Amino acid sequence: MSGSTYGTIFSITTWGESHGNGIGTVVDGCPAGLLLDEQYIQDYLNRRKPGQTRYSTPRKEEDKVSILSGVFEGRTTGTPISLVVFNENQRSGDYSKIASYYRPGHADYTFDQKYGFRDHRGGGRSSGRETIGRVAAGAIACAVLRELGIKVRAYTKAIGPISANMDTAKIDNASLSPLSMPDLDASARAEEYLKQQMEDYNSVGGIIECIVTGMPAGIGEPVFDKLDASLAKAVMSIGAIKGIEIGAGFQAASLMGSENNDSFEYDEASNLVKKTNHAGGILGGMSDGSDIILRAAVKPTPSIFRPQQTVNKDKENVEIQIKGRHDPIIVPRAVVVVESMVAITLVDQLFVGMASRMDRIREFYRK
Amino acid sequence: MSGSTYGTIFSITTWGESHGNGIGTVVDGCPAGLLLDEQYIQDYLNRRKPGQTRYSTPRKEEDKVSILSGVFEGRTTGTPISLVVFNENQRSGDYSKIASYYRPGHADYTFDQKYGFRDHRGGGRSSGRETIGRVAAGAIACAVLRELGIKVRAYTKAIGPISANMDTAKIDNASLSPLSMPDLDASARAEEYLKQQMEDYNSVGGIIECIVTGMPAGIGEPVFDKLDASLAKAVMSIGAIKGIEIGAGFQAASLMGSENNDSFEYDEASNLVKKTNHAGGILGGMSDGSDIILRAAVKPTPSIFRPQQTVNKDKENVEIQIKGRHDPIIVPRAVVVVESMVAITLVDQLFVGMASRMDRIREFYRK
Amino acid sequence: MSGSTYGTIFSITTWGESHGNGIGTVVDGCPAGLLLDEQYIQDYLNRRKPGQTRYSTPRKEEDKVSILSGVFEGRTTGTPISLVVFNENQRSGDYSKIASYYRPGHADYTFDQKYGFRDHRGGGRSSGRETIGRVAAGAIACAVLRELGIKVRAYTKAIGPISANMDTAKIDNASLSPLSMPDLDASARAEEYLKQQMEDYNSVGGIIECIVTGMPAGIGEPVFDKLDASLAKAVMSIGAIKGIEIGAGFQAASLMGSENNDSFEYDEASNLVKKTNHAGGILGGMSDGSDIILRAAVKPTPSIFRPQQTVNKDKENVEIQIKGRHDPIIVPRAVVVVESMVAITLVDQLFVGMASRMDRIREFYRK
Amino acid sequence: MSGSTYGTIFSITTWGESHGNGIGTVVDGCPAGLLLDEQYIQDYLNRRKPGQTRYSTPRKEEDKVSILSGVFEGRTTGTPISLVVFNENQRSGDYSKIASYYRPGHADYTFDQKYGFRDHRGGGRSSGRETIGRVAAGAIACAVLRELGIKVRAYTKAIGPISANMDTAKIDNASLSPLSMPDLDASARAEEYLKQQMEDYNSVGGIIECIVTGMPAGIGEPVFDKLDASLAKAVMSIGAIKGIEIGAGFQAASLMGSENNDSFEYDEASNLVKKTNHAGGILGGMSDGSDIILRAAVKPTPSIFRPQQTVNKDKENVEIQIKGRHDPIIVPRAVVVVESMVAITLVDQLFVGMASRMDRIREFYRK
Repeated sequence: MSGSTYGTIFSITTWGESHGNGIGTVVDGCPAGLLLDEQYIQDYLNRRKPGQTRYSTPRKEEDKVSILSGVFEGRTTGTPISLVVFNENQRSGDYSKIASYYRPGHADYTFDQKYGFRDHRGGGRSSGRETIGRVAAGAIACAVLRELGIKVRAYTKAIGPISANMDTAKIDNASLSPLSMPDLDASARAEEYLKQQMEDYNSVGGIIECIVTGMPAGIGEPVFDKLDASLAKAVMSIGAIKGIEIGAGFQAASLMGSENNDSFEYDEASNLVKKTNHAGGILGGMSDGSDIILRAAVKPTPSIFRPQQTVNKDKENVEIQIKGRHDPIIVPRAVVVVESMVAITLVDQLFVGMASRMDRIREFYRK
Repeated sequence: MSGSTYGTIFSITTWGESHGNGIGTVVDGCPAGLLLDEQYIQDYLNRRKPGQTRYSTPRKEEDKVSILSGVFEGRTTGTPISLVVFNENQRSGDYSKIASYYRPGHADYTFDQKYGFRDHRGGGRSSGRETIGRVAAGAIACAVLRELGIKVRAYTKAIGPISANMDTAKIDNASLSPLSMPDLDASARAEEYLKQQMEDYNSVGGIIECIVTGMPAGIGEPVFDKLDASLAKAVMSIGAIKGIEIGAGFQAASLMGSENNDSFEYDEASNLVKKTNHAGGILGGMSDGSDIILRAAVKPTPSIFRPQQTVNKDKENVEIQIKGRHDPIIVPRAVVVVESMVAITLVDQLFVGMASRMDRIREFYRK
Repeated sequence: MSGSTYGTIFSITTWGESHGNGIGTVVDGCPAGLLLDEQYIQDYLNRRKPGQTRYSTPRKEEDKVSILSGVFEGRTTGTPISLVVFNENQRSGDYSKIASYYRPGHADYTFDQKYGFRDHRGGGRSSGRETIGRVAAGAIACAVLRELGIKVRAYTKAIGPISANMDTAKIDNASLSPLSMPDLDASARAEEYLKQQMEDYNSVGGIIECIVTGMPAGIGEPVFDKLDASLAKAVMSIGAIKGIEIGAGFQAASLMGSENNDSFEYDEASNLVKKTNHAGGILGGMSDGSDIILRAAVKPTPSIFRPQQTVNKDKENVEIQIKGRHDPIIVPRAVVVVESMVAITLVDQLFVGMASRMDRIREFYRK
Repeated sequence: MSGSTYGTIFSITTWGESHGNGIGTVVDGCPAGLLLDEQYIQDYLNRRKPGQTRYSTPRKEEDKVSILSGVFEGRTTGTPISLVVFNENQRSGDYSKIASYYRPGHADYTFDQKYGFRDHRGGGRSSGRETIGRVAAGAIACAVLRELGIKVRAYTKAIGPISANMDTAKIDNASLSPLSMPDLDASARAEEYLKQQMEDYNSVGGIIECIVTGMPAGIGEPVFDKLDASLAKAVMSIGAIKGIEIGAGFQAASLMGSENNDSFEYDEASNLVKKTNHAGGILGGMSDGSDIILRAAVKPTPSIFRPQQTVNKDKENVEIQIKGRHDPIIVPRAVVVVESMVAITLVDQLFVGMASRMDRIREFYRK
């Protein structure tokens, strides 16, 4: 497949450009009988909608989702669910000039190299608006997970050099921070930092952390489709993500075995637990029953309002100044995108994993 | 697929357990007409073979590869290439005891959760020996890349807290270091550090860096099969890898846009180049023509010769002491595994990308 | 995938129910630079539109297609092409009663068994309207093939017991027959036969034949993805198709080797040709350069206006009488659906096949 | 994938050439806990082994299978099962001459067109020996089905013009016929016919019929991965198969709706049954709970011992005479190959279908 479909059993296919007619997604393999309505999906989309805080682009986009298929009398039917958000705010004029040069940090040059030309309006298919399709599908994946007692929550772990202290912060507080940072003290400092960079016509990166609770053990396929490998691809496929780590992640590289190994033990209720969780909930590519923890590094928004050196299609070195309305930071709006890609991946692996044991298959088909 | 096949057009399927009859791989979609013999593949396998230095397990394994199909009169025929390494050194006795408990940091528990029981001999399918299948296939992928002028080279970037300074070191020197670390001064210090941990019955992690040169621009599919996303999955699917980053990676999270953006310019020979390479050679999920750079975090070997707390199958908390012959560090032997997974991914994306433009397809089919 | 995506490199994902908001398709992997507009696709859709002749349902459906993405300034961009036909004529009332029983020859019962319930309005996802998504995508596939000099043409070979004599008929005449039957004499007789069955409140089946000209040799993957096997799946996946054969097909079963083998020879222009074409243009699963010929058996429309025995959800044996507006024969409207599925399959295999030879890959990447 | 892997969850990858080192298959996604040993698989392979009757090639091949991985203490572990049959009887000399010309009815020409050259020894990858990999995997699939009460049985339905009357014959009698034809009277006549053709240095085709009993309803994915479409591809991918039909098949094309529709009713035990089975057990692409019935047309063996016209690589029209030891008919040995491909397809669809309903998934994961 040429990259617009993701998933084996629970699969999503997304389409759409920033300044075309709309953005959409087709969710295939969603099981029948799930309660689903547009408002539920809309709530997820609203979390990535621009213009919610002073730290995102002031563009007004309603991003109103419609369900075109796959739902009948309030429940999914098992057939593909087609979702669409029609574009409303298509000020293509803003972008006309950028057809002639390659913006640093953007996909303009690589698109031209691959396809010979590109839809240059607002980033086309490489626009952040592409994530609408991911989030609409992610909402459905989260609905499936909820039925299984699994919860996926992401938040801002760091903005530039300012990190949240998650030893003391409560995840639920993320909704109180305009930056989705649960450590409200760090969030306030990050706001200051961000304002300063905005005044300086600059942009900022950060780190998103995602925690999955309630995951059963034994999910993930132990060789190429390891759960952590699949999550890495899913999250890394979001534009602007430059790194991904699970559990102790890069820190594990400087630990010793005696420090990094998580001991197993039985707790008072006789459940198997791990004393620590450097593994981030995954051993040998399969979930181990503890929380899954991952972090993704987000680069600073490449669109900055400063003069930049680049080249144009006439093979000239030129200085450009990007206009338009851009986010000074992508991180807070990307939080729900990370949740979505994680949720989609988990649902798919949960479904693929149903055929792992003959005894359970026999019981499933009652013979 | 349940995780043992990887790739869309150029695909590999691996099989085999640590203490079964052997380990193998089937490479499908290798183009016809490639020169290939067993010695070429053997050279790659020898780089991951144990017992080459004092820093790897002293187990003697010849790991001799045989080509069973797909090659005729010294050239590939386009049909699947089946490769096998028969196991020789199967001291299963060493491992018999571990059937009853779950080793910390290993996949024992998750295997039992997923499949109900496991082949407990030496890690079974989760053994490091599983990577033989990857390296044998990787050698073939490298042969394909070589024909296209593309070179994949990995090396040890860090061992525990000791990092190579790659500003001054030459990659080719990696072969002079028993730890595959091109900065020979850092390598010597890393050896000291490692010896100390070995005396202390402990193990150590590290970081592998991989550089791809000669990559044409425009390779990678811009949404879910982004080149960086695919590389992330490929590398993360290697056991013991806990993190992956491209270019500036996690460091990009604390940079500002003006620092992280790479300016384009034309060099003296009128080639489009980037002044810096924070992007790591990939923009919008497609190669941009500069070097691809990625790093992977490797956790310390979980098998250490110290008493550890864990549980057994009778639901008792027990103290165990792992016996056997284990690597105090995985990093140097994993270098060629990273190269292999990167090469396999690049070949597949190069092949998938051939159908991107109508003009080139028309020319290909000469109409 | 759960069945709504088809293809490896050139892939389509369809969605939509008979009486939902609409029917659509997402075409991924279409190469950039192909000229494409809505009218071109509309012309294909019009060929399957109902109400064109007295032998199809008198339902009025405009089936007007819109391109929502993937086309910029009249050319494809290489990104997914989203196509939608909104439903206009949703007289759900006609169908309300059928929720309670299982129509013979329909998928009512199997849908309920698989999903627990179903969207019973007009067949839901199993309606003939599902083929709109196939034809819209098929039009694009045909546009790709046209660029490569390949032409796919299907027509009605038989209606009930009446067969076209293709030794004398010209394919182009199919457009002159209301039944898409190129043998106009047979077509007239078939019309008589059909009218008689319609008066008798009955329905009729038939055979569709499809011929591909201009196909280069060597396309198809020789084991599981043989060209004929892939075509068989593609065509058999159309509702109401009960059989598929290539070349001599079932007749080959009663021939002797000396009769069935096609001799090779060089013709006057020194092109390699086959004297006969019992193989139907495919040898060993790969195209052999001669015309590809296949036939598909279409069952009679299951919706007939006669009393029928069946059961209801209360586990009672009941007699039912289907109302509504149904085709007395599916064959003529299915002709373009067969063309579409054949074309989609050929494009995908042509793209997959580009990476078969190292010399051609090297040349493609100019190294 | 380039055609050597088949299946989504339960998948097989085959490799090997007629005169290479051996033939093998890797079965991935086989659930853990299935009893499996080499003798069980050998019994299936013995059914396709040559030299069992006077109507197959007198070549002696033991075709002894070895399990190289995935089975531990007599049970499958859930990891890939690698199976190999080493070639013993490699009289390559017999075939040396055929490198220079293209045998009619064989894949010599298409292989050369696709790959530039070919392993010409005994048909290479297009040899009938390729089916060893299918049958070895098929045996495992049958073992899975047996656990679910599902039975797949194929037999010879017709040899040339002579058909078995299955209204009176018992399937079990197939094992009494050297041609696997359950109608022993027809079998005797077919033997006569075959002997006559053999004396005439000719070859014969036929029809294989396959019946699946015990299949639960609702298996199959209703659009592109319909159960009948998937079976069509699976069976058509066997060399020499030129047509496939389900239930009434091509005969349905000349029936009227009132004849072809199968009425539902409740039988005495209050089970839903169909009075007839023109559908062949599949409605809307999903199993309907009655027997699945399909037929495949097998062409006559292309290798005949008569002079034939063809061309050579020097672009000359030549007369050739094929030597060697060839089957005068493929049908009886292909019976178990059809069973295998059907069984593999059913297992895969049964596994894919486990995630169709939210209530069953919830129950499976016990939440």
